Amino acid sequence: MTAIDLNADLGEGFGRWRLTDDEQLLSVVTSANVACGFHAGDAATMRRVCDLAAERGVTVGAQVSYRDLAGFGRRPMDVPPGELAAEVAYQIGALEVFARAAGARVAYVKPHGALYNRVVRDEEQAGAVIEGVRLADASLPVLGLPGSRLLELAVKAGLPAVPEAFADRAYTDAGTLVPRGRDGAVVADPEAVVERSVSIARSGTVTAHSGVRIQVRARSLCLHGDTPGAVELARRVRERLAAAGVRVAAFA
Amino acid sequence: MTAIDLNADLGEGFGRWRLTDDEQLLSVVTSANVACGFHAGDAATMRRVCDLAAERGVTVGAQVSYRDLAGFGRRPMDVPPGELAAEVAYQIGALEVFARAAGARVAYVKPHGALYNRVVRDEEQAGAVIEGVRLADASLPVLGLPGSRLLELAVKAGLPAVPEAFADRAYTDAGTLVPRGRDGAVVADPEAVVERSVSIARSGTVTAHSGVRIQVRARSLCLHGDTPGAVELARRVRERLAAAGVRVAAFA
Amino acid sequence: MTAIDLNADLGEGFGRWRLTDDEQLLSVVTSANVACGFHAGDAATMRRVCDLAAERGVTVGAQVSYRDLAGFGRRPMDVPPGELAAEVAYQIGALEVFARAAGARVAYVKPHGALYNRVVRDEEQAGAVIEGVRLADASLPVLGLPGSRLLELAVKAGLPAVPEAFADRAYTDAGTLVPRGRDGAVVADPEAVVERSVSIARSGTVTAHSGVRIQVRARSLCLHGDTPGAVELARRVRERLAAAGVRVAAFA
Amino acid sequence: MTAIDLNADLGEGFGRWRLTDDEQLLSVVTSANVACGFHAGDAATMRRVCDLAAERGVTVGAQVSYRDLAGFGRRPMDVPPGELAAEVAYQIGALEVFARAAGARVAYVKPHGALYNRVVRDEEQAGAVIEGVRLADASLPVLGLPGSRLLELAVKAGLPAVPEAFADRAYTDAGTLVPRGRDGAVVADPEAVVERSVSIARSGTVTAHSGVRIQVRARSLCLHGDTPGAVELARRVRERLAAAGVRVAAFA
Repeated sequence: MTAIDLNADLGEGFGRWRLTDDEQLLSVVTSANVACGFHAGDAATMRRVCDLAAERGVTVGAQVSYRDLAGFGRRPMDVPPGELAAEVAYQIGALEVFARAAGARVAYVKPHGALYNRVVRDEEQAGAVIEGVRLADASLPVLGLPGSRLLELAVKAGLPAVPEAFADRAYTDAGTLVPRGRDGAVVADPEAVVERSVSIARSGTVTAHSGVRIQVRARSLCLHGDTPGAVELARRVRERLAAAGVRVAAFA
Repeated sequence: MTAIDLNADLGEGFGRWRLTDDEQLLSVVTSANVACGFHAGDAATMRRVCDLAAERGVTVGAQVSYRDLAGFGRRPMDVPPGELAAEVAYQIGALEVFARAAGARVAYVKPHGALYNRVVRDEEQAGAVIEGVRLADASLPVLGLPGSRLLELAVKAGLPAVPEAFADRAYTDAGTLVPRGRDGAVVADPEAVVERSVSIARSGTVTAHSGVRIQVRARSLCLHGDTPGAVELARRVRERLAAAGVRVAAFA
Repeated sequence: MTAIDLNADLGEGFGRWRLTDDEQLLSVVTSANVACGFHAGDAATMRRVCDLAAERGVTVGAQVSYRDLAGFGRRPMDVPPGELAAEVAYQIGALEVFARAAGARVAYVKPHGALYNRVVRDEEQAGAVIEGVRLADASLPVLGLPGSRLLELAVKAGLPAVPEAFADRAYTDAGTLVPRGRDGAVVADPEAVVERSVSIARSGTVTAHSGVRIQVRARSLCLHGDTPGAVELARRVRERLAAAGVRVAAFA
Repeated sequence: MTAIDLNADLGEGFGRWRLTDDEQLLSVVTSANVACGFHAGDAATMRRVCDLAAERGVTVGAQVSYRDLAGFGRRPMDVPPGELAAEVAYQIGALEVFARAAGARVAYVKPHGALYNRVVRDEEQAGAVIEGVRLADASLPVLGLPGSRLLELAVKAGLPAVPEAFADRAYTDAGTLVPRGRDGAVVADPEAVVERSVSIARSGTVTAHSGVRIQVRARSLCLHGDTPGAVELARRVRERLAAAGVRVAAFA
């Protein structure tokens, strides 16, 4: 029986501000990418999300980012690799405290926003993220885009590399994401997102932007939690996966 | 044979800025209070200090603070206890990554600046610090002022409470510190600091501001690293303690 | 004909996060307390709010705060007066750029959150805020609680002191606010808030928590923008004031 | 008689940390690039530097930066142009308060660090900086590298464009700076720096890295204030310029 993980970004508020409906999302996803304070996520929120995740049996992952609260980690940055590695490790360590206090542990690492996009191609920064992960724990899985430098370097460093797919994003024939901002880059129709989720999980294929059928290797599906109707859509995806005979389960 | 620990604040730079001569101080002290990013201490500096401390056999402690870079953690703040506890735990966890990567571990916790002063009397904040320490590790020693609420609550919570003394600060007859700003609050003469260090370590007594001899219970002496001549003075203290038959050794 | 100003906190998002419905509130209030970056309010948001306020003829005021993004400016702090004065001036200056670019100007200053509460009684901090205001502009009105040290020192310094009232907060017989957290501190019933608004504006009186009728001197009413139904309530207040023959107009 | 301005970065501490010897440098330079809080420069420091500059008749300029305290503004960033423009304006406004309170005004703008380098070629970011300057004051001179997109766009926008040169940096034959990190990129010999200063000021020429004599158009010389011996070197430059018949005077 095929298995797929559902991951979403959680705890992306900061102090007075909230963004994601953490409580609801934690009843749907199997892996929680918890913000660690650099793009979002204050300490009290991290604690609360870890407690709730542990209670619900949701796996906790560290969503690491550039140090950029004002830009929500979406401002591409050139950070010297030694500093970037240390910043990644810092975030993992901070989250680990709350995961352990909740009886869980940080079970994987996923880069956020501009850092996520950067390490698809950037050798130096991908290497720095891997170094940061290894500083924290040399056996920690890394979640990212299949074919990315990040996952390649993870494998090279002996870390489990976990590929993920996006059911609500259009793909090129080469299997990369159509950049946001291009026409049709985001799949808006909920039913289409659901069908694509099932297709990716069951057959490892999806219809590309051109109409061609392509392969998309994925052990996890990334669901977005900060859009209207996000929780409802996530529920439908999970139900339809189950109905299609796909086991929804954390990878870690 | 009597034993005393020498602790100092280290890694108190941030990004481009340096404050303490970490390299030199690590050749003198036995315990390093490492800044964890809230009042000072960026991730790369934390890593470097942990590596160096481990190499020299110096014990690593987490110097936790209010979230206040602009005020260097010296601005007294009322932080809701739940938030304060989480912030303390966050800092300990972040440092733990670098300590472990260096083959060591965070071996104790010491509050910094305004938080240090506040938890001498403030039940709620002292309790929040203890809760934060226990979130991170329920067996972690806490370093602080003898007689403080912090150490009392540490004992109550089953955490080792380690009292420290200040050889360069004047004491009242009641054994509390003469507040900075008052005449004679700081002992400026290096020879006096050295002698007071030996006296505290050997006999557990020191001459108070009034001239009266008082008891000062201490398992550790706090040395200041951010003043001119600090390293030289620290060296003299250490040499004279050794000459007086006091074993200089970490408490943890 | 009596005149009353309606003020509300605006632009209290930060980066990716939103809090207040700035667009809607600016169609109701006559004075906008714009967050200046220390507790909320990034530069782009400040610019947008100033542009919109100027377009709608709403007066722009600087809502100055302690430097505390993580605590939303609600963490009471002891900031050395020289630093606090400079921080207040910094915020006013930053906002002034956007107000002027929009063809307006910063027309008053109002402290936020913990600073607002502190300067009701604290001589030193109230003095520092006044010094900060004067650094920026020695003729700038200050908006605050009647009877507060802040307004007393404003008068002494030759700055216009503008008292405000809260229609949704309970008052003691002495005319001070019943502290949040106490039973009945907040008036939840919208109709009651509307009636109290009219009463304060027309007769300068309101029913205190005890049932006694007391005097409440106010040239401005503070409306809250971050609660559900806030905009709708603000609209009703404005309509009923107009219906009661009260002219709704900015004080500055 | 030829005139040249001497500019240096000042006020580049933050809170507890100091970097530049502001007091000494203000006795040598004619223009002070004052840090505005985004890469360095807290409010109290900005005030102090402005007061001192005004007292000494030194012109005050806003040294604007990416929002990056941890990286000292040296981390290249992609900031959406609308946000960057607003951030630039914010910094200028904040400094303007202190300049005016000291009886002066912000007389020019100079980008710092990674932003300085970026706007040499980057059309979008250079345009955003210019937009930010114009939001603050549509007549403000912009200080930068001759031939940079920044200065070209300044001219186009009707802002005075002021070219500067670096006597302690090697030049390519094309008149651009040899990138830091390359061999010989920095001129270490103080006497050489002094001679190059005089040459640039008197004849508008300097010996390039290749040995060829090239033209370097400059109305200002940038002196570095954060290296050992910086103040002494700045003094020598100023004296030798005077001895060579060059008038040392602010451009603004």
